[in-house]
Amino acid sequence: MKASAPGQFTTTDERTDFFIERDGERFAGTHLIIDLVGASRLDDLEHIETALRRCVEVSKATLLHIHLHHFTPNGGVSGVAVLSESHISIHTWPEANYAALDVFMCGIAEPQNSIAVLQEAFTPSDIRVDEHRRGRGMV
Amino acid sequence: MKASAPGQFTTTDERTDFFIERDGERFAGTHLIIDLVGASRLDDLEHIETALRRCVEVSKATLLHIHLHHFTPNGGVSGVAVLSESHISIHTWPEANYAALDVFMCGIAEPQNSIAVLQEAFTPSDIRVDEHRRGRGMV
Repeated sequence: MKASAPGQFTTTDERTDFFIERDGERFAGTHLIIDLVGASRLDDLEHIETALRRCVEVSKATLLHIHLHHFTPNGGVSGVAVLSESHISIHTWPEANYAALDVFMCGIAEPQNSIAVLQEAFTPSDIRVDEHRRGRGMV
Repeated sequence: MKASAPGQFTTTDERTDFFIERDGERFAGTHLIIDLVGASRLDDLEHIETALRRCVEVSKATLLHIHLHHFTPNGGVSGVAVLSESHISIHTWPEANYAALDVFMCGIAEPQNSIAVLQEAFTPSDIRVDEHRRGRGMV
C-alpha cells in the first residue's frame, strides 16, 4: 500500500482479463474508441457517473474504482472507471456537445453493450466507434 | 461531493484541454494507443507508478488523480492517471511481457514525449503506436 499522493490507492485482487481467442485470433482485449457528437447532459456529473456504472453492468464487467472530475468554468467532466477487465474513460466538452470515450475490456466481458447505454444516456446525433483488438499478434 | 462508492471522488478544477488547431485540422486531443511487446518490469507496481508520473511530467501535463491496481496471481497491474488534459492508462500482462497503454492529452501537452519514457522504463523489444486525433471533424 502506498499513500504518497492524494487519491492514490494500491489494492490487490484477482484479474479477469485473460486472453481472448476469437475468429482465429488471439488478443488481450477489445478497445473501443467512441466519439459522441451532438450529445447532451455532458456537464451532468451525476448522470455521467450513472451512465458509466451502467456501462460496466451491461458489459458484465467488474468495477474496482471510479473517479470523476468536474472542470470549471465549462462544466466538462473527466471520468475513469478501473475494471477487473481494464477500464472505461470519458472526457466531455459540453460547449461543443462532444464527448470522447474509450471502453477497454478483456476476458468474457462484452464492451459493445456499452454503446446502447451511451446512446440512451447522452442522445448523440452521431456516435462513432473504432475497435482495436489490443495485443493482436503480440500475445 | 459524492461518497457513494469506495475510492470515488468528485472534485472541481480548471481544465486545460481546449481544442487544438494543427495542420489545418481542429480536434479535441491526441490519443495514442501504445502496445509494448517483449517488455520487462510489468509486475513492478512501484516502477510502473514512477513511469506513469514521469510520462505526465515529460508531456507537460498536470496530474489530478492516480490509481493503480495489482492483480493476483499473475502480478499484472492496471493503472490510470487522470490529468487536466485527459488521461493515461496502463494494463500489463507480465506472463506475456505485454502491456497495453493509452495516452490521451488535449491542449498544449505533448503526449508523444511519453514514448521515450516507456521505452526506457520497460525496455520493450517492440513498441507500437497508433494515433487518433479525437474529435477531428466533430468539434
